[in-house]
Amino acid sequence: MTLDKFSGLNTRISPKATIGKNVLIGDNTVIYDNVEIGDNTVICDNCVIGEPLNAYYADTRNYENPRTQIGPGSLIRSYSILYAGSVFGEGLQCGHRVTVRENVTCGKHCSIGTLCDIQGYSVFGDYVRMHSNVHIGQHSTIGNYCWIYPYTVFTNDPTPPSDICVGPTVGDYSIVATHCLLLPGVTIGKHCLIGACSMVSRDIQDYQVAIGSPARAVKDVREVKDRETGEPHYPWPERFSRNMPWDGIGYKKWLEEGQ
Amino acid sequence: MTLDKFSGLNTRISPKATIGKNVLIGDNTVIYDNVEIGDNTVICDNCVIGEPLNAYYADTRNYENPRTQIGPGSLIRSYSILYAGSVFGEGLQCGHRVTVRENVTCGKHCSIGTLCDIQGYSVFGDYVRMHSNVHIGQHSTIGNYCWIYPYTVFTNDPTPPSDICVGPTVGDYSIVATHCLLLPGVTIGKHCLIGACSMVSRDIQDYQVAIGSPARAVKDVREVKDRETGEPHYPWPERFSRNMPWDGIGYKKWLEEGQ
Amino acid sequence: MTLDKFSGLNTRISPKATIGKNVLIGDNTVIYDNVEIGDNTVICDNCVIGEPLNAYYADTRNYENPRTQIGPGSLIRSYSILYAGSVFGEGLQCGHRVTVRENVTCGKHCSIGTLCDIQGYSVFGDYVRMHSNVHIGQHSTIGNYCWIYPYTVFTNDPTPPSDICVGPTVGDYSIVATHCLLLPGVTIGKHCLIGACSMVSRDIQDYQVAIGSPARAVKDVREVKDRETGEPHYPWPERFSRNMPWDGIGYKKWLEEGQ
Repeated sequence: MTLDKFSGLNTRISPKATIGKNVLIGDNTVIYDNVEIGDNTVICDNCVIGEPLNAYYADTRNYENPRTQIGPGSLIRSYSILYAGSVFGEGLQCGHRVTVRENVTCGKHCSIGTLCDIQGYSVFGDYVRMHSNVHIGQHSTIGNYCWIYPYTVFTNDPTPPSDICVGPTVGDYSIVATHCLLLPGVTIGKHCLIGACSMVSRDIQDYQVAIGSPARAVKDVREVKDRETGEPHYPWPERFSRNMPWDGIGYKKWLEEGQ
Repeated sequence: MTLDKFSGLNTRISPKATIGKNVLIGDNTVIYDNVEIGDNTVICDNCVIGEPLNAYYADTRNYENPRTQIGPGSLIRSYSILYAGSVFGEGLQCGHRVTVRENVTCGKHCSIGTLCDIQGYSVFGDYVRMHSNVHIGQHSTIGNYCWIYPYTVFTNDPTPPSDICVGPTVGDYSIVATHCLLLPGVTIGKHCLIGACSMVSRDIQDYQVAIGSPARAVKDVREVKDRETGEPHYPWPERFSRNMPWDGIGYKKWLEEGQ
Repeated sequence: MTLDKFSGLNTRISPKATIGKNVLIGDNTVIYDNVEIGDNTVICDNCVIGEPLNAYYADTRNYENPRTQIGPGSLIRSYSILYAGSVFGEGLQCGHRVTVRENVTCGKHCSIGTLCDIQGYSVFGDYVRMHSNVHIGQHSTIGNYCWIYPYTVFTNDPTPPSDICVGPTVGDYSIVATHCLLLPGVTIGKHCLIGACSMVSRDIQDYQVAIGSPARAVKDVREVKDRETGEPHYPWPERFSRNMPWDGIGYKKWLEEGQ
């Protein structure tokens, strides 16, 4: 490339930030106080890492920015804003224009798609994949190896407006398809598949396929066939391994080996 | 903070803009001609205030930017674009990446969430709260003390595509939950509660809870109980007062005192 | 205007880009290698044209950017990101914060609204209108003169997650209203009207109005009346011509003249 994303134009890095080895930081990107960026990470142009919390505007001089951690080997695409006070494990992938507010604990090898809006105060496991434009309300919990598809929303106020805040919980390996809504406090079990355009208002047990508005369990996920082969497709880790820790080994063997 | 959001880096302010006292304007932010910013307002980094209308591109030299007013005590978060030709009352709060087009009249103490897309030519009352990613089509009307939740869309063309443009109307104190769609020209009364994922195709009377697609009135909002206390939760101003003008006084007394 | 969008502040243009006559390029905008911009085009501020593909981050020096073409007479509004490797015909209009990934072939006089998220590897005809916040998954096909309304999503994985990727197809003159979901591989015929909040899971024949979740054909589009006149409104080109090639001639005559 003749033109470089990492020319240093208007890049600003706090002297109180800690930057690992072999890190690229793009033009117009700002890294605020008390951010720690792991080795071999790429932060693209026009990003804000360690965005100051609301208290900053009340007293910009005396404000202390909480610690922010970006794991090694991460790639954060342009125009993303990650607030101070969150911790992301290694191998984070962010799309463009992602917003993540404070107090998020995010496991390793997670992916947060373009335009996602994470409202903070939530916990995500490892290998969580959020596609574009997912909205996660505060106090949500997402397990490991979950897939959340576009325009799905996690809500948390059962009688809006109120001061109650109870987010949804999604179990390991579960999939929530496009345009779904999870109502406050619902729990989706492990290995579930929530069909597109569903509104989940009650808990869903492990291995259930649930669809509709309100979502009802209609069958066991292990009965769903692959369209092309006619073979069962779920549990999906037995059929899909791209970028997963069982890639090359196979899910069953990986499980047997205690992961 | 060691690193400041308001260092003046690439900040550009038109000599024809009027900036109040004690105003902070962030890095990379542009304030165009004929913008008036009230006292004690914070405009964060990478914002555009008074974005020129489409006519600008046809004749950049002779174009006259219409007047834009941002009330005192406002806070506009980063990457927001407010077009020229709108008026916002005091205490405006904007999330990140908000887009508001021309000819919006917005009352005082309103809040417009991250990624909201307001298409212009609309009127909002006081204390309107729009959560993230709300889309308001042209010629919409929202009363006072309304709550609009994420991914809700106000539409305006009954036979698309056409040149007819009739937006929805939402009455005072009403709540439209997440992932709703308001069809062109519908009127929602006062103190209504529209449940999540509803498509409102017909008018809804005052104090109704309406759900479904199409939305049907199912009960009086005063019958809805708080999940924790078992007490009625609505009308919500009797139970919720954070950031509302009756905070500390109570809604009933505030009403009696003529507001 | 006293303050100019095209002052050249931080504008960066690759020496390997080809810029037509009478082109305006906004402040903070970057034009990467092998981009060709047609005459009389306006690229507003804070845009990225020819965004490098993922391979760039693995080897920023030796990476070769694929060719990107923006047709003449286009207007791309601020904060939009168009990846390298796509071709857009003349008269492209983009809203703010549009993201278009690689390998899109887009006809002439198309419009892509604010916050649209086009995932790449798709083909759009001429005069396609996408309103705000439309999400188009990979391997989608949209014909000529189609209208896609806000928050509509095109999906492509029938058994998520999998390596199957079959996008939807929308025929010429068809309309997909707000908050719809198109399931993987569905085909919508010509002159169809898909009602708001529909989930299209099966093919829809030409001239059908389909609504619901799952969407079912409920009538012929030619039976739908204009709300004001009581006359048939569809096929819409007979009643609507703004910015269409039959403007001033009339659709029927334009058809007779072989377009």
